[in-house]
Amino acid sequence: MNTAVEINASLGAGADSPAHAVVHAAVVGATGYAGCELLTILARHPAASVTCLMSSGRSGKKAFAIEDSHPKLRGRFSVLCEPLDVDRLINSGSNVVFLATPHDTSHQIVPRLLEGGLRVVDLSGAFRLKDSAAYTKWYGFDHTAAEALAEAVYGIPEFDAPAIAKARLISNPGCYPTSVLLALAPLLKAGWVNVAAGIIADSKSGATGAGRKPSDKLHFPEVNENLRAYGIFHHRHLPEMLQELEVSRKDFIFTPHLLPITRGILTTIYARLSPQHGIGDVEALFKEFYAGAPMVRIYPAGTMPEILGVANTQFADIGFALDESTGRLILVSTIDNLGKGAAGQAVQNMNVMYGFPQQTGLL
Amino acid sequence: MNTAVEINASLGAGADSPAHAVVHAAVVGATGYAGCELLTILARHPAASVTCLMSSGRSGKKAFAIEDSHPKLRGRFSVLCEPLDVDRLINSGSNVVFLATPHDTSHQIVPRLLEGGLRVVDLSGAFRLKDSAAYTKWYGFDHTAAEALAEAVYGIPEFDAPAIAKARLISNPGCYPTSVLLALAPLLKAGWVNVAAGIIADSKSGATGAGRKPSDKLHFPEVNENLRAYGIFHHRHLPEMLQELEVSRKDFIFTPHLLPITRGILTTIYARLSPQHGIGDVEALFKEFYAGAPMVRIYPAGTMPEILGVANTQFADIGFALDESTGRLILVSTIDNLGKGAAGQAVQNMNVMYGFPQQTGLL
Amino acid sequence: MNTAVEINASLGAGADSPAHAVVHAAVVGATGYAGCELLTILARHPAASVTCLMSSGRSGKKAFAIEDSHPKLRGRFSVLCEPLDVDRLINSGSNVVFLATPHDTSHQIVPRLLEGGLRVVDLSGAFRLKDSAAYTKWYGFDHTAAEALAEAVYGIPEFDAPAIAKARLISNPGCYPTSVLLALAPLLKAGWVNVAAGIIADSKSGATGAGRKPSDKLHFPEVNENLRAYGIFHHRHLPEMLQELEVSRKDFIFTPHLLPITRGILTTIYARLSPQHGIGDVEALFKEFYAGAPMVRIYPAGTMPEILGVANTQFADIGFALDESTGRLILVSTIDNLGKGAAGQAVQNMNVMYGFPQQTGLL
Amino acid sequence: MNTAVEINASLGAGADSPAHAVVHAAVVGATGYAGCELLTILARHPAASVTCLMSSGRSGKKAFAIEDSHPKLRGRFSVLCEPLDVDRLINSGSNVVFLATPHDTSHQIVPRLLEGGLRVVDLSGAFRLKDSAAYTKWYGFDHTAAEALAEAVYGIPEFDAPAIAKARLISNPGCYPTSVLLALAPLLKAGWVNVAAGIIADSKSGATGAGRKPSDKLHFPEVNENLRAYGIFHHRHLPEMLQELEVSRKDFIFTPHLLPITRGILTTIYARLSPQHGIGDVEALFKEFYAGAPMVRIYPAGTMPEILGVANTQFADIGFALDESTGRLILVSTIDNLGKGAAGQAVQNMNVMYGFPQQTGLL
Repeated sequence: MNTAVEINASLGAGADSPAHAVVHAAVVGATGYAGCELLTILARHPAASVTCLMSSGRSGKKAFAIEDSHPKLRGRFSVLCEPLDVDRLINSGSNVVFLATPHDTSHQIVPRLLEGGLRVVDLSGAFRLKDSAAYTKWYGFDHTAAEALAEAVYGIPEFDAPAIAKARLISNPGCYPTSVLLALAPLLKAGWVNVAAGIIADSKSGATGAGRKPSDKLHFPEVNENLRAYGIFHHRHLPEMLQELEVSRKDFIFTPHLLPITRGILTTIYARLSPQHGIGDVEALFKEFYAGAPMVRIYPAGTMPEILGVANTQFADIGFALDESTGRLILVSTIDNLGKGAAGQAVQNMNVMYGFPQQTGLL
Repeated sequence: MNTAVEINASLGAGADSPAHAVVHAAVVGATGYAGCELLTILARHPAASVTCLMSSGRSGKKAFAIEDSHPKLRGRFSVLCEPLDVDRLINSGSNVVFLATPHDTSHQIVPRLLEGGLRVVDLSGAFRLKDSAAYTKWYGFDHTAAEALAEAVYGIPEFDAPAIAKARLISNPGCYPTSVLLALAPLLKAGWVNVAAGIIADSKSGATGAGRKPSDKLHFPEVNENLRAYGIFHHRHLPEMLQELEVSRKDFIFTPHLLPITRGILTTIYARLSPQHGIGDVEALFKEFYAGAPMVRIYPAGTMPEILGVANTQFADIGFALDESTGRLILVSTIDNLGKGAAGQAVQNMNVMYGFPQQTGLL
Repeated sequence: MNTAVEINASLGAGADSPAHAVVHAAVVGATGYAGCELLTILARHPAASVTCLMSSGRSGKKAFAIEDSHPKLRGRFSVLCEPLDVDRLINSGSNVVFLATPHDTSHQIVPRLLEGGLRVVDLSGAFRLKDSAAYTKWYGFDHTAAEALAEAVYGIPEFDAPAIAKARLISNPGCYPTSVLLALAPLLKAGWVNVAAGIIADSKSGATGAGRKPSDKLHFPEVNENLRAYGIFHHRHLPEMLQELEVSRKDFIFTPHLLPITRGILTTIYARLSPQHGIGDVEALFKEFYAGAPMVRIYPAGTMPEILGVANTQFADIGFALDESTGRLILVSTIDNLGKGAAGQAVQNMNVMYGFPQQTGLL
Repeated sequence: MNTAVEINASLGAGADSPAHAVVHAAVVGATGYAGCELLTILARHPAASVTCLMSSGRSGKKAFAIEDSHPKLRGRFSVLCEPLDVDRLINSGSNVVFLATPHDTSHQIVPRLLEGGLRVVDLSGAFRLKDSAAYTKWYGFDHTAAEALAEAVYGIPEFDAPAIAKARLISNPGCYPTSVLLALAPLLKAGWVNVAAGIIADSKSGATGAGRKPSDKLHFPEVNENLRAYGIFHHRHLPEMLQELEVSRKDFIFTPHLLPITRGILTTIYARLSPQHGIGDVEALFKEFYAGAPMVRIYPAGTMPEILGVANTQFADIGFALDESTGRLILVSTIDNLGKGAAGQAVQNMNVMYGFPQQTGLL
């Protein structure tokens, strides 16, 4: 049977080097949770190969098998994970680098990577805020990579695919902002929300959103059977949302909570709809805005998505309900924080950058 | 050693019949989660004994050991659990009956229990709404126990202990309303909140709040690693909150979510404080309002309670933060839904009814 | 860029009808957990399409979108899920049918499906035991499909791929037996275990292994923060293991436990190794036995797999440790109960049946 | 009402200083999980007061409110938690000290505490093994407190209350050993088990058993939805079990597993019963052995305890099943690792030391 033979051939090579790959990807920060998800996705991607794995936190160590860090990946990759080395990275034969690194690492190495001819998708916050002064305030460091910051494209493919397609540097959005922006942007761009009456985004996230570094707050018994609000009025993702939504701080409140689950974000958003619009209008607006957007799924009016529907997927799901007598609108937005909230969006950006359909490797 | 001897004596009797008991309590609905918590508390209560256990859902069955239903209670109670029988209940030698029964069961039997001379603490919703017509709308049945409804006292001991002390029928508040009312009432009663600007209560509850009856929605894999918003704009606890807060539906939104945990509620409340008040005023108000209230704990300004702090306790914890430039106030309120949200509050009501310190048996 | 164009083409069709599909698959029992996993895998399979979805439990109902049952599958399948109808199934244009149905349903319909020319992969227990009398004892029904039972091939591709390749009816192994057999079979077949000294398999499984039907025992608060042993000495999967291992009941003990997790099985196996073999021999034996087996991963001696390494994958992982002074051997075997323990193995069997590499669509 | 007045009086004092206390207790290691459980129990104990709180890990810090470490204890204790200071401890007016400290801390300070006239209940492993050489092998340090080690009493009140009553130093058993010993000791002491045929204890524990110090292995996403075997053939609790059971290493295997829950241990034990005994004998033996033991509950033959039945209690539950044709015996033993596995047993030991009924404060 011919087909079987062909399939045999395409499966003959390891996950990290399909014969037909056209994009050669490096993953820096491969030992973290977003790194693992990137590798899981890329291993399935029909047009990408993983050419280089690096870890920024293990600078003194030797190269090691990535399965030592992620048992799930046992046997999937033959390329070893090396300590971060920018020169080696530039000469690794990669076309694109995914940085799943801390803010300061990204801030430091991105200019050299661009100079070295690599395209970069940065999953950290280091290039998300247009105003470099905001870094001093919200991130606690002085941003010195002005050129890179100026050229960085905030990468939500549903919002501006043409800019992403041309970009050398994608700043991959935060997980919370992704869940909030996808739900609010269509309505705000249409001018249908009474912004001055206030918008509230009450977010709940799984623990992988906080990274893999152990701490008192993320110790198992401190998260399990618990729920905790944190970063009230001053979470680092707030300025990113204000910037992209073009709203002021007095009109927008964001409260994150830590859920006792591994993966997933659910954000409940409260806003006031302009009185001339009904629930049917909202549905039509969402359907139109996300027509042709394969990674966003709009729920029927009054039906709300839940985290189970997106966990371990790369989708964002959006639901909405309207109390028509008062114009009170509730949006519920769900993503997997490691999927559409991080690695899935990063690969979706890569797909746009290289002319592939957005969903390639993501279904 | 004398003391040891005395302690020996006081421990000699079983948990269900301390020699010195002055209140003889019956628990109907003993096989549910609130029933188990009631029994756990009463077994420790220095002035109460459990004289009668009944189950409304097992009407055809024989009496059985309560440990068959709650392994945790193995060996703690010698009195058997019987099918519900109102006459037997009235003649059981009990002073007070806790009803952890479905709404319609409570609705049906409360008048006869009162007539039979029992005092009643009803944990169902059957006597919470003053307006009997509201039952048709929110609960789907026509309320026919007008006299009992008229005399029922909504039982939050921190709000009106004198009325509770005299009551024959306590309507024990819902778990969500308890978490909302304790946080909001002091501010609303003081007139410090701009109600017209809208109040939002975003609640997250553990699964025991939904009871012990199996269903698709509460099947383990449907709750675990998930979060789900439900009852949007029309949860049954909404009218109870509007009634007690004396606010109208257009000014108050309540959204419950189902957490993948067993016990606990965290409610995040968003309101606008009148401009003349600062964070210090709010702290002082809470401290004064809850001075002498042993079961409510006020957190320092800006420090928020989490579910772990109240799970498996009978406390309610309240925290608050204020963005002073905009007057945006965030309250975080936590309870154990089975504790202060149900059984703990029920026993606290009983304590008030019988002249005991409110915290008796609850610490 | 040519490659992108080709990828575009291959992604143009919906997940349920890739243009190049060579196997047309029907899934009966699509609303259950194994059904969802089958669909998730088949949607990615490069040579299979899903032509028919049926549900055995909804016989009276109309066809419905599968996303109504599995939010995760929203937008992935255009074919509707219909009530089970054997004639329609036979005429659905399918080549192969996956039955993720109750035992009695499979028992009843398999003969007709075979007669209708379909190949069948049955995930129920209805055709696992060679001895039809065992069904009366262990499953409580009299087996009447003797011919089908006789021709059924117990489908572990690592054990007998040639028989699977030719089979019309595959009996897909139980989840527990898969975890036990993969770990023990190499050693038993080699005759290296002192069987008479006793073998113990202590298994721990996530809750999806018990199916999607709500019950007291699977109600969220009864599973969460709990661990429960069940089916001691008489679990239905025991005869299947005895049959495949060719050991007698007096020499083999199997104890399952219900874990408070959604997916995954870990089995800890205790046996005595014949004195002439060391740890190195065991490692070599496993490596050789599973050489060329893409879905089984052998851990280095003394390093044990954990559930996280296989959850949401189709792999089986096996680790082993030996106390050389006493010959006491411990094996730890992990699978995802819905993956290699059910749907993953079913598709792996399909791959063998149609001449595809075993791992096709499973990585 | 007189009774109410008396109750008022008894509740008038804070949890840490009941007027009638006859034992003044110090808790060192108050910031850990066992420390929190000790305080929770002692706050309810009718004859004990907490006079001193210390933390060994915060030596440089000032005294702080214990609620800063354990939100659950907010408002319960007025005494502050101080850095460990042996002189202050000796002069704190305490009668008994609970050490919930690391092994090396206990090893170092116990001799001075005894010399200072305090009675000590040590929850660490520092005084559990009679053979001081075993510490070098299993704990990695040379034991130098020979006198204290010689006088230490291994504290399981059900086994040797008279020795505990007289002891100055109680070595509180490990959590795993408690679950194993309570189930096996009656049978081994009676000589009913064929030890040479091998005994296996397969234990599963919640994460608080591993303490409060954050680490890679206890980071929330590494424990959640996972199960992991560890310490195979060489866990530190093994020698303690061999010593107390008086069996040799070749006849006893212990395998611990980390459960994704906060509290609780379930141990499944496999043994061979001598052929002359039946299930009824086993039941009678357990009933007799634990007659008068208020903290151990024996399940009916064939009915197994589960973790939910003991979590957040101080009980140990034991169940058993026998395959009479083969003599294979399975025991299931459950405790709360912080309860009967640590703090509950410690207070039970204290009760015996001071002549109180064993269950005082533990129900």
